[in-house]
Amino acid sequence: MQTRATLLAHARDTLGALRREGRYREFAHLEKLAGRFPVYRWHAPAGLREVTVWSSNDYLGMGSHPAVLAAATRAIAEHGAGAGGTRNISGTSPLIVALEAELASLHGKSGALLFGSGYMANQAALSAVLEALPGFWVFSDAKNHASMIAGMRGAKAAKRVIWTHNDLADLEAKLAAAPPEAPKLIAFESVYSMDGDIAPIAAICDLAERYGAMTYLDEVHAVGLYGETGGGISERDAVAHRVDLIEGTLAKGFGVLGGYVAGEAELVDFIRSVAGGLIFTTALPPAVAGAALESVRVLKRDPARRAALAERAAALKAALDAAGLPRIPGPSHIVPVMVGEAELCRQVARRLLEEHALYATPINYPTVPRGTERLRLCATPFHTDAMIAELVEALKAVLPKRSVPLAAE
Amino acid sequence: MQTRATLLAHARDTLGALRREGRYREFAHLEKLAGRFPVYRWHAPAGLREVTVWSSNDYLGMGSHPAVLAAATRAIAEHGAGAGGTRNISGTSPLIVALEAELASLHGKSGALLFGSGYMANQAALSAVLEALPGFWVFSDAKNHASMIAGMRGAKAAKRVIWTHNDLADLEAKLAAAPPEAPKLIAFESVYSMDGDIAPIAAICDLAERYGAMTYLDEVHAVGLYGETGGGISERDAVAHRVDLIEGTLAKGFGVLGGYVAGEAELVDFIRSVAGGLIFTTALPPAVAGAALESVRVLKRDPARRAALAERAAALKAALDAAGLPRIPGPSHIVPVMVGEAELCRQVARRLLEEHALYATPINYPTVPRGTERLRLCATPFHTDAMIAELVEALKAVLPKRSVPLAAE
Repeated sequence: MQTRATLLAHARDTLGALRREGRYREFAHLEKLAGRFPVYRWHAPAGLREVTVWSSNDYLGMGSHPAVLAAATRAIAEHGAGAGGTRNISGTSPLIVALEAELASLHGKSGALLFGSGYMANQAALSAVLEALPGFWVFSDAKNHASMIAGMRGAKAAKRVIWTHNDLADLEAKLAAAPPEAPKLIAFESVYSMDGDIAPIAAICDLAERYGAMTYLDEVHAVGLYGETGGGISERDAVAHRVDLIEGTLAKGFGVLGGYVAGEAELVDFIRSVAGGLIFTTALPPAVAGAALESVRVLKRDPARRAALAERAAALKAALDAAGLPRIPGPSHIVPVMVGEAELCRQVARRLLEEHALYATPINYPTVPRGTERLRLCATPFHTDAMIAELVEALKAVLPKRSVPLAAE
Repeated sequence: MQTRATLLAHARDTLGALRREGRYREFAHLEKLAGRFPVYRWHAPAGLREVTVWSSNDYLGMGSHPAVLAAATRAIAEHGAGAGGTRNISGTSPLIVALEAELASLHGKSGALLFGSGYMANQAALSAVLEALPGFWVFSDAKNHASMIAGMRGAKAAKRVIWTHNDLADLEAKLAAAPPEAPKLIAFESVYSMDGDIAPIAAICDLAERYGAMTYLDEVHAVGLYGETGGGISERDAVAHRVDLIEGTLAKGFGVLGGYVAGEAELVDFIRSVAGGLIFTTALPPAVAGAALESVRVLKRDPARRAALAERAAALKAALDAAGLPRIPGPSHIVPVMVGEAELCRQVARRLLEEHALYATPINYPTVPRGTERLRLCATPFHTDAMIAELVEALKAVLPKRSVPLAAE
């Protein structure tokens, strides 16, 4: 077989099918403007245009915080542009050591370990834990992120049981049905990114204790945003000490890049010692470690910024509801607006951008199930009342009149 | 079972065994000093101390290049500390678009795709290609990097055949033994990181053509360093057009962070559209993209820096040979010195650091086979004759008199 020609034909077919289904991803070229968040410069085919971004994961605007920018700039001047090696090959800088200590403290744990991304953290840590003991059973919430699934699949011998999203009865039934002598891990998130709902962490910890299971909690969409010092929903609910491993990111609430796990020092040291994704990859650059360290420290002392996020999210939800727009209800800062069909969702996003200078990412399969395609909106502390009003008017203009029924209602 | 207690006991046992075998990794805390590379500040238990680093992967010192630092600082001032989203969620900045175009051009390809790291690039791209067609056979060089192995394993249905390192006869025998109708991929590296030897790329491409196979080449330890414009060994040997996918890093020769694949635009677009590791992870920060873009552009026009690297590597090899030290011979800038036993290797590195203020990473299993433990040295353009002489004297003092026979000789 001439592999190249066959593969290219397959690539063309696949791309054509994605285009026909409206699922072909075109990445909008969006230039962040440090002083003007959430206003970006869109590099459109027809030229430059200013747009308001409603789908940033820089939830608190920390990527533009002056102290964070100053820390990044200082780190570059003092330590250069890159780490120059893996953690093991001269890449463990004092900034990285300090950041790990800060993250452990944030979650009240004795250890924390940095990775290049939250994806790598989930993939490496879950695989390492599930491969540690023979016969591991992992109980995975049905809406867990792709990176957690990658980590669980990476441990080939582990038995993976999927429980209905946030459904304690289903989780308990599945724990009870597993062999009592098997090691068990419950893997779940706090804030679910695409629906914006929140897990009952305390009740899940109750079940974990009853059945001798460990707990692994992804707080990627919560760290920096919730809890007295930004430790996430597990801090808000005062249950961090009951969770064995807390995974988080420095790329969303903290506004920079990187992922981590926090837990008991010996368990974290074990993951450090066996995880391939850590040993075989270059450490985070000085500017990233320095900026993230500053961001975590600033947010520990800044509950007002968290309160502003909550207030802005409530204002956005109230405005959408007042206009009768099809919002998926939920208690977090993530505000999904249902569209329900891939090509339509893409068109709605395109019209928002081209006709109203508003950017909202269309979320299609496989990120969400088919038939539940949506726009995913987040109001940061920097989105004004005027911006919310402008968004609502634009949505009224571009969303179809008879909306698809809401899956979550 | 009480999973937590069982896992913690296992973690303690594992860490204890690693310590007993001399394989427990302690990451030295090394502070890069931007203006003084390769001199670092070692944060030792007893206090601060200046050391010369011999194991940086910042092979050309680009992590301290003034133009690169200026580009990083400018990007932070203009665009902030983080990308604020995945590539699909507002994270595709003009800097990232420009960097991908620059990398495609570097390799003479019509497309290139950035990832958060070379590890992610290999893992995602290899899995995506091998899952694209049913019945794929992948022919993997025995010394391929862990990230390539992760990518090949990720494609569960693909048949993986390992051929003897750099052995054309063995590769051909294995290609000939595979079903003629099966799609085939040959996966290999140009410069192998732990031995410093170089693949016969043209001859491998000959075999690929003869058997209808595609080629996937990891140039992580060569980009920036070899070829007229820094395109790697495939540029030096004028065979880049015969390689289907070239994978590289921005974290070593280019001195920053990130990985990429370059190839035909439609194939790259296919990988972009199906690779989970890309869609589900935050894009590289402005400072990283800006610094890397500047580094690639500077190195395209700076053959003198590449010549200086080659001259310094030759000087280091000559000095080691003149002193009768057990160097593994090889044609590249990577200079391994054999020690041959894990605990001894660790001790040699520790004595170099503590007694001679020289940092060289001990390379142990699983990075290299047991019995071939080594120090891995690289002379950058910034390592002086005096530093080489100092290193040779120190190695004479700390290496055991009767050295283990060299595996590669």
